Amino acid sequence: MSNIYDTANQLERDLRALPAFQNLKEAFVEIKADEEASRLFDEFKAAMHSFQMKQMAGQQPEQTEVEQMQALSAKVSENAAIKKLMESEQQLSQVIEDMNRIITKPLQELYQS
Amino acid sequence: MSNIYDTANQLERDLRALPAFQNLKEAFVEIKADEEASRLFDEFKAAMHSFQMKQMAGQQPEQTEVEQMQALSAKVSENAAIKKLMESEQQLSQVIEDMNRIITKPLQELYQS
Repeated sequence: MSNIYDTANQLERDLRALPAFQNLKEAFVEIKADEEASRLFDEFKAAMHSFQMKQMAGQQPEQTEVEQMQALSAKVSENAAIKKLMESEQQLSQVIEDMNRIITKPLQELYQS
Repeated sequence: MSNIYDTANQLERDLRALPAFQNLKEAFVEIKADEEASRLFDEFKAAMHSFQMKQMAGQQPEQTEVEQMQALSAKVSENAAIKKLMESEQQLSQVIEDMNRIITKPLQELYQS
């Protein structure tokens, strides 16, 4: 039996060593170094945030907003650094989701039985 | 470098091997086998749930409800099996919280910088 805290620290090191994590780190640096990408990414995050807030409040987005969001998404995905960031974020969120599912399995089993 | 999924599976085994997890498992079995404890525990969970729902809805609990809840809590903590369950749940939730903090540290660092 290994110490659970040692294992958790090993998992933290494994996560840092993932190509997706390295890519995410690089993408952050690349975006920061590129004024145009940085501005575009901030604009995209702000628009996404406001869009999601409205959805959470149960408001139907207006057609112009949907179109603006689509145009911005298209523009953003043309930028290599932002695209890299979004792809690596998605990969990492899948890994984190898997980790949580695996680790909490013993408790799930117990509470479902 | 180890495989992150192997490490997660090791963490799952480490969690199962924790005394707190073993105690939680035993407590579930003990409560199920004891009709009085089982009834008391169901009553406690239902009261706690309704109490928390009201708090979430911003309602001030009535004095009688607070007193009922306190009486029920006292009664529940006199039952050895339920006490064992609640203590081991609390220990495990601390461990799970620690695990999450350790594992998500690389991402926290990245997004805070």
